[in-house]
Amino acid sequence: MSKFFSKKYAKLTPYVPGEQPKDIQYIKLNTNESPFPLPKEVIESARAEAEKCQLYSDPTCTELIKKASEVYKVKPSQILPTNGSDEILNFAFMAFCDKDTPAVFADITYGFYSVFAELNGVPYKTIALKEDFSIDYKEYLGVNATVFIANPNAPTGLALSKAEIEEIVKSNPDNVVVIDEAYVDFGGESVVSLIDKYENLLVTHTFSKSRSMAGARLGLGFACEKLIADLNTVKYSTNPYNVNRMTMEMGRTALCRQDYFDEKCKEICAVREFVATRLRALGFSVLPSKTNFLFITSPAISGEKLYKKLKARGILVRHFEKERIRNYNRVTIGTREQMQTFLETVQAILEEEK
Amino acid sequence: MSKFFSKKYAKLTPYVPGEQPKDIQYIKLNTNESPFPLPKEVIESARAEAEKCQLYSDPTCTELIKKASEVYKVKPSQILPTNGSDEILNFAFMAFCDKDTPAVFADITYGFYSVFAELNGVPYKTIALKEDFSIDYKEYLGVNATVFIANPNAPTGLALSKAEIEEIVKSNPDNVVVIDEAYVDFGGESVVSLIDKYENLLVTHTFSKSRSMAGARLGLGFACEKLIADLNTVKYSTNPYNVNRMTMEMGRTALCRQDYFDEKCKEICAVREFVATRLRALGFSVLPSKTNFLFITSPAISGEKLYKKLKARGILVRHFEKERIRNYNRVTIGTREQMQTFLETVQAILEEEK
Repeated sequence: MSKFFSKKYAKLTPYVPGEQPKDIQYIKLNTNESPFPLPKEVIESARAEAEKCQLYSDPTCTELIKKASEVYKVKPSQILPTNGSDEILNFAFMAFCDKDTPAVFADITYGFYSVFAELNGVPYKTIALKEDFSIDYKEYLGVNATVFIANPNAPTGLALSKAEIEEIVKSNPDNVVVIDEAYVDFGGESVVSLIDKYENLLVTHTFSKSRSMAGARLGLGFACEKLIADLNTVKYSTNPYNVNRMTMEMGRTALCRQDYFDEKCKEICAVREFVATRLRALGFSVLPSKTNFLFITSPAISGEKLYKKLKARGILVRHFEKERIRNYNRVTIGTREQMQTFLETVQAILEEEK
Repeated sequence: MSKFFSKKYAKLTPYVPGEQPKDIQYIKLNTNESPFPLPKEVIESARAEAEKCQLYSDPTCTELIKKASEVYKVKPSQILPTNGSDEILNFAFMAFCDKDTPAVFADITYGFYSVFAELNGVPYKTIALKEDFSIDYKEYLGVNATVFIANPNAPTGLALSKAEIEEIVKSNPDNVVVIDEAYVDFGGESVVSLIDKYENLLVTHTFSKSRSMAGARLGLGFACEKLIADLNTVKYSTNPYNVNRMTMEMGRTALCRQDYFDEKCKEICAVREFVATRLRALGFSVLPSKTNFLFITSPAISGEKLYKKLKARGILVRHFEKERIRNYNRVTIGTREQMQTFLETVQAILEEEK
């Protein structure tokens, strides 16, 4: 830290993204990316935009928003595209939290929420997940704080129902409730359709998981017009051209190929259930996932040891150094072939442990 | 504004980017973009990266930084790439300013500095440009505040010398001095080479102007390792994957084609001098520019009227509603053909005014 660094960040501990190793070619099951490439027309759209790159991107993202409004059946004024959904989440902490408006979220959830809170000087409290790692929605009723819920939750993969989320939104009329639906396309219930009904609901989506665009960075926020206007005030005070040309047009083109991504999501869900069944047969406890990953633990091997042994064999999964979940690993669902290799490797590791 | 919007932003007035009209095809001389497209290999690199877009971009930007370190002759640990240079400027306001560390900048300069200050709750004072719109570097000596200087300055186009900037940096050892060199490639003197000598110097560059990548969003920050480490703490607490795959590789490839961009910069400077001479012959006062734009005023027509009449004829320039510069327009240097049309149109408008 330099002597110039603002004292307000003295305690700030940055988010640690999953490893992006450059040494060897791993089977990468650690950052919940899609194993499937983009459809050809989406790839071509990147090239077409690069040809016009001497001109700024459209700060109003008009064409992308227009297409998104068709797909999601909301008004264009109810959508804000961002540089990945991390950006819209940070904007929400900036816009709807402050010293007098704390944040609340689960003790085990997306690790970035506490970082955003620290970064923005926002006081926060966490609510412990139940013993089975599920969220007790009743604990979020009338909490008098800005609520952040990943639904389905990460790294557990567990989901609340639409009715439960609606109860939370309804019971907090004086606070914004942010529902982070990064993984919703793999079996969760979206609440985007509720934004017309509740002025305090913000729903965030990402193109990084179900839409194979992690490397392009695109997120969408959905909320009533007034909340989106507030978030636009933050955007235009931060980075008006936050979404670049290639990403913007790739996002629009991807929204035209919902058929492709729906099919890939189905495939990932099928592989997920196959892997879960096989892991349970191997003695693992596997949480019932509504996402593109599994959260698993085995009485036969510690979480850290399994992570390290898999890595030594060329397979990366995500292990978290957090007390409650130290014995777990989060395993992204790759292709059927990748998961076959994963299962065989896990089995071989367990044999060694006997 | 919704009732949920944080009171801390009650007075926040967002930055207003130059018009990006969608109705008709303008000759666009209003946002200081390059009139030249990217070299072919840079465009192709966007496509190649789109093919791998299901995987996250490299948060450490290793390959881009490696190439930049060769071109700029600094260490990789002295470079931070961002989502446009607006992002690194915002990071600097976050990291090196706070309630006890105010910011200082010119009264007439890049309009975003005051927005970043407001956004981050940073007190700031402005120092008036001299009567001739130049910066008096002596007024920035020992100011006991974080200094932000666009050099060359916008929208004036005037530049301080390297020696003058060094004096400012040297005289403020307890504060960071940020030199925003967005336009330096059109005739200014860069101070990037001074980052080894001064631990309080941060230099920011953009690929939006001289490198034809406005639509891709790429900025670079250069400073000593410790300052870059601080800025990385902010980055990893904001958006670790802030630069997407296409932009990262296009940036790297662009740095391999410095010959192309040097040639285009020369061409723009030559056209700029030709246009300045012609405008002076038409009675304009034209500031001596070291950028890819001219800041001009005529006793024969008000700044606003000229702006509107040009727009009505399909030419966009930038007019600012700010008292001191109300009678000026900022005109980006386009291709020789575009500027020929611009000059003919200006002449025709002046004829009408007689």
